[in-house]
Amino acid sequence: MNPQFARRMTRFQESDLTPILRLAANPDVISFAGGLPAPELFPVEDLKKVAVKVLDAYGRRALQYSATEGHLPLREKIAARTNKNLKTSLTAENVVVTTGSQQSLDILAKMYIDEGDCILCESPTYLGALSAFNSCLPAYREVATDGEGMVLADLEKALASEKSAKMIYVIPDFQNPSGKTWSLERRKAFLDTVSKYDILVVEDNPYGELRFEGTTPPSLKSMDARGQVVMLGTFSKIFCPGVRVAWVCGEPAFLESFCNLKQAADLHTSTISQYEIDAYLSDYDIEEHIKRLVSVYRERRDLMIRTMDAAFPKEVVFTRPEGGLFTWAEMPEHVNARELFLKALEKKVAFVPGGAFFPNGGHENTMRLNYSNMPPERIVEGIERLGAAIREYL
Amino acid sequence: MNPQFARRMTRFQESDLTPILRLAANPDVISFAGGLPAPELFPVEDLKKVAVKVLDAYGRRALQYSATEGHLPLREKIAARTNKNLKTSLTAENVVVTTGSQQSLDILAKMYIDEGDCILCESPTYLGALSAFNSCLPAYREVATDGEGMVLADLEKALASEKSAKMIYVIPDFQNPSGKTWSLERRKAFLDTVSKYDILVVEDNPYGELRFEGTTPPSLKSMDARGQVVMLGTFSKIFCPGVRVAWVCGEPAFLESFCNLKQAADLHTSTISQYEIDAYLSDYDIEEHIKRLVSVYRERRDLMIRTMDAAFPKEVVFTRPEGGLFTWAEMPEHVNARELFLKALEKKVAFVPGGAFFPNGGHENTMRLNYSNMPPERIVEGIERLGAAIREYL
Repeated sequence: MNPQFARRMTRFQESDLTPILRLAANPDVISFAGGLPAPELFPVEDLKKVAVKVLDAYGRRALQYSATEGHLPLREKIAARTNKNLKTSLTAENVVVTTGSQQSLDILAKMYIDEGDCILCESPTYLGALSAFNSCLPAYREVATDGEGMVLADLEKALASEKSAKMIYVIPDFQNPSGKTWSLERRKAFLDTVSKYDILVVEDNPYGELRFEGTTPPSLKSMDARGQVVMLGTFSKIFCPGVRVAWVCGEPAFLESFCNLKQAADLHTSTISQYEIDAYLSDYDIEEHIKRLVSVYRERRDLMIRTMDAAFPKEVVFTRPEGGLFTWAEMPEHVNARELFLKALEKKVAFVPGGAFFPNGGHENTMRLNYSNMPPERIVEGIERLGAAIREYL
Repeated sequence: MNPQFARRMTRFQESDLTPILRLAANPDVISFAGGLPAPELFPVEDLKKVAVKVLDAYGRRALQYSATEGHLPLREKIAARTNKNLKTSLTAENVVVTTGSQQSLDILAKMYIDEGDCILCESPTYLGALSAFNSCLPAYREVATDGEGMVLADLEKALASEKSAKMIYVIPDFQNPSGKTWSLERRKAFLDTVSKYDILVVEDNPYGELRFEGTTPPSLKSMDARGQVVMLGTFSKIFCPGVRVAWVCGEPAFLESFCNLKQAADLHTSTISQYEIDAYLSDYDIEEHIKRLVSVYRERRDLMIRTMDAAFPKEVVFTRPEGGLFTWAEMPEHVNARELFLKALEKKVAFVPGGAFFPNGGHENTMRLNYSNMPPERIVEGIERLGAAIREYL
């Protein structure tokens, strides 16, 4: 019995993420592959108090079906925090709670993408976004990206030539996978350019609050005069990913259509998780919690970069991110990181081969390395092993 | 700024569920509209203990990203309970945890439905399934349904004529919305008929464990020799819906493709909710809990049916379900339940107009009534008000 799959399943023959995430779960391997936060920093004790408090105060409501758009007090708090941190002017009406940002990506594609419609993205871009978009069978136009953001000349070329372009997907802060951040000038010029087109800008911002040094440029959303930008945020990187709670910010009319699709996809996000996060935000200082994360991740970045400087051959170049979870390495052209991956595995160290982050292929000489998840001694050991694997390969 | 929506959005211009669920939230209204469990029966105190225990024992793992297919001990327990209750022979390899069964419906459509492909369903069928399927733009062929299940002559006609039929969606136990249960004979004959075709059978079974009297016929899945049936189950009706944890049972090869799409949709279901349910199943007797639910819902069904007998005009006929959450009423042909809905609202009582459960329209003289959510005195008061509204309408 084998009914014929829908056409979109050709894009899901093998998921690039699945074997890598499986591997990352093997405790023998030092994994720089996932985008996992440091579990030792999860506020476990605070959450015990919060869980009991929520069940005492709101048990019946917190365990019941709830509104698709999310728990109002939580939406209000998300709007207020975003306004403070990213200079936006949002109210709860501009916020819908989602089951991770992954769900927002799935729904955004459903909203705008018919088969063959074009999505513009950075080159490279987030692998998981490509998976989500793929279920709507889009075409991708990668826009050349330098240290300051999308290259405007190439963006203009893409916008002029791709008549079916519906969406531009960008991660301006500590990009996944490159670790790069867009400059203020580039953000302004980007918005000037796209404002001439009827195209949605999706600003994915899971890492922006994890800044180790320097100052955060204004978010695209804060400079969005036309209601052209929707911004995605998440509790996964600043709190815990296991609860699967994130949010999307946009105009109320946009969110109404978004919610119709969200209701069809999972009715609503976990009621009790929303109540718990809301209680956590009321009773504890998440800004202090984020400061602790930043301090630990800064050390780990420093340690990883320092070890890479010493252990990697000079031909390998990599980013020195000012925040977020990832650095990105480019090796000599003839290196194939998928092959290197297998050699590294023999030494029990893992990364994500970079080719997977380019929807149209190529760039197989690249890799993404995560520094947030492994403790310091394993970062040093893992990078030294990886350096040895690269040297052997070369 | 208004980029053009994808074609599928024509199916989401207005959601039938949204205004009704909003209304159900107004505490002034006696609502028989939702499919909500009785919140006073949620095991709030047990869950307080479970939440603390899980965070003590597994805090770091329970709050982290986790495998798309779900938490292995929970999958094992789901397989064992299903085998015991529904005479299946499943292992954890046959079970994937989902973010509510709504997510399974969304993913099943993505897996099999290209635009215009046909889904066969009971007439009437579950409204929320139609919403989920609609994002893949299917056609629907309603199969005539009587008190014992799908009418086989009509099913055969549909299978023979609908060459693009990919999926048959059925709810054989205490169907939503009709409250009806398929007979054993019909189940066998149904499987005989469909076994001649390469078509997937989706057996949605959220209510089967809520049986008030009589015996449960074997599930379709338990009689499925060809791996043709996937079965959906959920903790929403036997535990709490607010945690959004459900499951899908099927062949491992099917589930592998299913998981690739699930990963793209939300990465995985809440880790901590899965740990908590697993701990609840270990430490408490969910079968005893379900007995309490059954006892309360049986009383409420009895009370609703008795009050309907007394308060509704004789021209209104309705089902006397042996379990589940709903009864289904048919009024004289000239009655339009959407109009009646507005009159009932004036009397502060709500139901779901039945036309929404027929994907190809018609049957506007029907309505679905839920008896699980409202306490006894409100059931009596609400049904009397509704009876008065119907009498006035007639």
